[in-house]
Amino acid sequence: MSEAITISAYEWAPDTSRGHVRDLVVRWALEEIDRPYQTELLHAGAPRSADYMEWQPFGQVPALREGDVEMFESGAILIHLGEQDERLLPHEPVARARTLSWLMAAACSIEPAVRPITTFPRYFGEQEWSGEAVAFLRPFAEARMQQLTTALGGKEWIAGEFSIADIMLTYALRTTAAAMIGDYPTLVAYLERTTARPAFQRALQAQLDDLSAPEIPEN
Amino acid sequence: MSEAITISAYEWAPDTSRGHVRDLVVRWALEEIDRPYQTELLHAGAPRSADYMEWQPFGQVPALREGDVEMFESGAILIHLGEQDERLLPHEPVARARTLSWLMAAACSIEPAVRPITTFPRYFGEQEWSGEAVAFLRPFAEARMQQLTTALGGKEWIAGEFSIADIMLTYALRTTAAAMIGDYPTLVAYLERTTARPAFQRALQAQLDDLSAPEIPEN
Repeated sequence: MSEAITISAYEWAPDTSRGHVRDLVVRWALEEIDRPYQTELLHAGAPRSADYMEWQPFGQVPALREGDVEMFESGAILIHLGEQDERLLPHEPVARARTLSWLMAAACSIEPAVRPITTFPRYFGEQEWSGEAVAFLRPFAEARMQQLTTALGGKEWIAGEFSIADIMLTYALRTTAAAMIGDYPTLVAYLERTTARPAFQRALQAQLDDLSAPEIPEN
Repeated sequence: MSEAITISAYEWAPDTSRGHVRDLVVRWALEEIDRPYQTELLHAGAPRSADYMEWQPFGQVPALREGDVEMFESGAILIHLGEQDERLLPHEPVARARTLSWLMAAACSIEPAVRPITTFPRYFGEQEWSGEAVAFLRPFAEARMQQLTTALGGKEWIAGEFSIADIMLTYALRTTAAAMIGDYPTLVAYLERTTARPAFQRALQAQLDDLSAPEIPEN
């Protein structure tokens, strides 16, 4: 491979999502390996075309096109890019297995545990059940953050060298765990390291630059 | 590679978990490619050793050891096994990208959407907030199940040939979406196809056979 890459992203999204839409992780990975890409921009508030639903069955972003390859899910796209560049996913078997483990852990064990703590107050804060639900779910989320702190320990990156696992974990901590991260200084320091990378900064600016459409889409 | 494989699993788990513990997906993948494996059994009700927490940082199952490789997260293990056998993960780029996309979609877009509908009533059913939370979260879960139904259409397997994407999606539908699946006949029929595979049946029996310890662990 190594054909031209197109990713889907938004031309408008609500204020709370700006800088946090999931195309950020794909942009970041591409910036880390200096791969240029084009964007196909959608309005987050507008209906999706049937063609887009073929490309991304849930109508979300990002999706990726590279020659004949069409795919979706940011984690899958990270692996796909990692298979093309060792700076994202090492070939050496022990490091590769550790990287895949932490990529999936960020998406499947950290994110689902912490998500309600951040999103229930944001989306359901006016509902009485929301606060009670968060009270019940918080101990589990806190246990996961503590286990992650222990696993990270004094390491610079989560799986050895910087990798797609750090990209996915940064998304989980910076966005999904936004309401909790402040209580975990080791994780805050980790997040400062990952988001200080020039590739992250370029990806963030590119997402913000693309979010320039008016709130009401033209029809 | 192709060294001896050890996976962690349980020697005891609560009745509601039997046949649904996540080592099932790894056993299934191994059965599909006729790879023998050993198990290292833990008691789901007993504390974890420090050694085990090094292997699996959240204290869960499964974890996998293969020569020098130690890894965790069922989705990561499926990819690791898929990299060794095309029957699990095709080499051809278009099919491979589609398989990775659906593997991640099952874990990251289907499971988190449907999980509260199944688990809140089970674990928090006595709490008043639980039913109200489910009522608010159900439309989103239903939309995902409908989008999945559309994407599956008349296809036999989700990503072309049978693959690790079907293994992960089966877990999401059979276990995580247990409280909803009955409303989606296309998905019920798909589940009947995937769970009729001899490799699934062998994996299920192996998990049930291992769950033979008494409820109270010896200390």
